[in-house]
Amino acid sequence: MFTNSTTDFNRALSLKQRKARQESGLFLAEGRKVVAEGLEAGCPCRAVYVREGFFGQHEETDALLSAANTLVLGEREFNRLADTEQPQGLIGVFEWSGLLCSSLTARFVPVLFDVADPRNLGNIVRSADWFGFSEIVVGETCVDPFNGKAVRSSMGSIFRTRFVLSDDLVASLTALKERYRIVVADLDGEDYRAFKTGATAAIVFSNEARGPSPEILALADAIATIPGAGRAESLSVATAAAVMFAALF
Amino acid sequence: MFTNSTTDFNRALSLKQRKARQESGLFLAEGRKVVAEGLEAGCPCRAVYVREGFFGQHEETDALLSAANTLVLGEREFNRLADTEQPQGLIGVFEWSGLLCSSLTARFVPVLFDVADPRNLGNIVRSADWFGFSEIVVGETCVDPFNGKAVRSSMGSIFRTRFVLSDDLVASLTALKERYRIVVADLDGEDYRAFKTGATAAIVFSNEARGPSPEILALADAIATIPGAGRAESLSVATAAAVMFAALF
Repeated sequence: MFTNSTTDFNRALSLKQRKARQESGLFLAEGRKVVAEGLEAGCPCRAVYVREGFFGQHEETDALLSAANTLVLGEREFNRLADTEQPQGLIGVFEWSGLLCSSLTARFVPVLFDVADPRNLGNIVRSADWFGFSEIVVGETCVDPFNGKAVRSSMGSIFRTRFVLSDDLVASLTALKERYRIVVADLDGEDYRAFKTGATAAIVFSNEARGPSPEILALADAIATIPGAGRAESLSVATAAAVMFAALF
Repeated sequence: MFTNSTTDFNRALSLKQRKARQESGLFLAEGRKVVAEGLEAGCPCRAVYVREGFFGQHEETDALLSAANTLVLGEREFNRLADTEQPQGLIGVFEWSGLLCSSLTARFVPVLFDVADPRNLGNIVRSADWFGFSEIVVGETCVDPFNGKAVRSSMGSIFRTRFVLSDDLVASLTALKERYRIVVADLDGEDYRAFKTGATAAIVFSNEARGPSPEILALADAIATIPGAGRAESLSVATAAAVMFAALF
């Protein structure tokens, strides 16, 4: 458990860096909804930092925090730890190891290749959760799913998702290919509406500027495309993922 | 046309504020792709500010800018005008009046109520453009579509869209109701997949936290819902809009 010591505060502060998150097994989750989802999901929580004067404004949140190890910070220190411009006043320190899974059991698995924008990644987690897809494979060149912006964009869905953090996505997909049909989202493929719902499939979404790599395309059993009117160059990767999730739901 | 004077630089700087955009009829568009789309769409451009040393790196952009009124800024001043942390080095000053339309001709019209996040608004513009929906009604409590973040999130699609900026969305919808079926996206309505493509419809998307107002719900001919697995509380409004656009495309 964290205490109100400077050492622990500095440890919490370090969790803004990916390396510190990886070494400590911890991450920060900011905001009322996200912290509540983490606590409700039973994700191990080392501390919830709250800003001076936070308590007494939201009965529900206060009740939820009564079982947590809450540590009060002055406004200046709180704002150093916060990642938003207008922080809501609470930041949880959670363990991420329970959010990983070593093998996949889901029928339909989103796979992320080279997704660089944390908001896109968090948004994909949120949409996947909405449509009931609870296991996600994250490739080694993606942004960290436990990045603060990704966690916030997931709106707490991160706590209901189980991640495979691949350190070699091509190898992971090669292994997956024994059990899953590998579908790669890209331009110039088959209309995604032609794909059957209910099939056992891993669907790869890639960085929207760079697209899938030749190695990943070589593993594809099919290429899925969202047809457009031909004016905009692309959809955001988070939008494309949600549109395909909706069709396969 | 803007010159390299301090007065004009300060005018450009003021365009970060909504009030100055409204009074001047101008807005800022930052980044290579967005500026290129603006110039290619023929949107009147008063100036393109470029960072010292910008030219000579991208032949295509250089060629495109040759017909524009380019003004070079030192790095420090450029960064004051930029809205991103790692600016690409060019910012256009465009006129927005040509991007408005006074009456609607489209068969299918997205209507935005109280959408507060500029990234969501820009993303909706981008997705609408992808699926070929070129007219959008923006309610008076929405964020300004010519906000810098909204423009960037649209990835240039803003220049291919025509906006009705309503100053009374309930009155606008009441008038639209004569020609359009009013469909409101909300929880607990009919499954959106039951709606026919090809119908003449205005579809209202609302702030994801607050939802549609009672006045707007009272105008609805139908409520459309995206069914979920029941775990995540909501989709982002940009995601919900794209999923419905895709189904109606």
